[in-house]
Amino acid sequence: MLSGIPVLATHSRLAVSMTTAILFDIDGTLVDSNYLHVEAWSHGFAGAGLEVDQWKVHRHIGMDSSQLLDTLVPDATAVQLAQAKALNHAYFADLMPRLRVFAGAREKVAELARAGFTVVLATSAPDDELEVLRELLGVDEHLAVVTSAGDVDVAKPAPDLLQVALEKAGVVASDAVMVGDSVWDMLAAERAGVRAIGVLTGGVSAAELRDAGASTVYESVADLVIE
Amino acid sequence: MLSGIPVLATHSRLAVSMTTAILFDIDGTLVDSNYLHVEAWSHGFAGAGLEVDQWKVHRHIGMDSSQLLDTLVPDATAVQLAQAKALNHAYFADLMPRLRVFAGAREKVAELARAGFTVVLATSAPDDELEVLRELLGVDEHLAVVTSAGDVDVAKPAPDLLQVALEKAGVVASDAVMVGDSVWDMLAAERAGVRAIGVLTGGVSAAELRDAGASTVYESVADLVIE
Repeated sequence: MLSGIPVLATHSRLAVSMTTAILFDIDGTLVDSNYLHVEAWSHGFAGAGLEVDQWKVHRHIGMDSSQLLDTLVPDATAVQLAQAKALNHAYFADLMPRLRVFAGAREKVAELARAGFTVVLATSAPDDELEVLRELLGVDEHLAVVTSAGDVDVAKPAPDLLQVALEKAGVVASDAVMVGDSVWDMLAAERAGVRAIGVLTGGVSAAELRDAGASTVYESVADLVIE
Repeated sequence: MLSGIPVLATHSRLAVSMTTAILFDIDGTLVDSNYLHVEAWSHGFAGAGLEVDQWKVHRHIGMDSSQLLDTLVPDATAVQLAQAKALNHAYFADLMPRLRVFAGAREKVAELARAGFTVVLATSAPDDELEVLRELLGVDEHLAVVTSAGDVDVAKPAPDLLQVALEKAGVVASDAVMVGDSVWDMLAAERAGVRAIGVLTGGVSAAELRDAGASTVYESVADLVIE
């Protein structure tokens, strides 16, 4: 009787994908930075004479910055766009000392790496920001791959960043999950064929994350359970 | 045949309440201030050595400040609480020049007042803030009543503020609607027996507002339709 089972089990295993890699967004997911980004962009827009509601800025954090600008200030002049970008960048640099890692996030990354998962940081943060974020996180020893702005031409919600991350990690999409806090993370994951998990720490609601494709939503990375 | 109809119509009119008064929250509803409050409180907490995730601060804006502190920093010392409150107040005062009225909000208040509605500002903002907000709004001529922090001991989600507003306006709860952006506005309305309408301009999602009792959710006050 038992001799027949392994064949069936092998088939089952082929049909059910196994999560082996976890792609983490950083901003708003591992580090409490979304509201600082809202602050910096709002300052940048105001300084360039552009009126944008702050809740709309918030909802577009995590989106590719060119697309963010196209969406939020479609009528801005080239000079205003340059001003807004420069002010945002300078203002955010001033806010960096206020960045904090979410409680338990560092420990969760370490725990998952020790459990055998391939852990990846899938971000398009500019190099100077990424350096600060990585130092703050202090989890480099647990990471298989880290992407950055230089890896792709277009950031989330395009799938490119996730595809680069998967390629670098040598993992197929069906064996990976993306953990993020923004609608743009969820959409990028869907487009890359990666299962998406949402967290509330970026200030976007569970309903919005589910509508954008999240299969599960946890309050924070500390609460994450990978099955 | 027709002679019997008025009686029926009168009965129907008694059973169906008629909206005659509109109670508006200010912060995050008429004025783009929630994210500035998040910024000020976050600064206050950090300055007092208290770690609080910014998304949690955001979700508690609009709540009575004593309850906000009890919820967010239950273990803070009296000295830390005093520091956080003082820093928040001073920092927000510095941010006030960045306050903006949401596009179309001023015009909607005027339109509703001209249409015959009793328009009320139901807020518990401290007097110094309220003065700035009223000057910024510039709708005083259209207002029947304005409440402030001095009117009640406990602010939203307690119903007290709405009850004072209704009493001052001489309106019964069933004839009023509350328009707000926060879960605390929706809960206060429910407890006061007032129908609640939500707006997204405070950065809280439609699903969260509906879960807290909103009968309808509009993107902004400019989109508001009172039936």
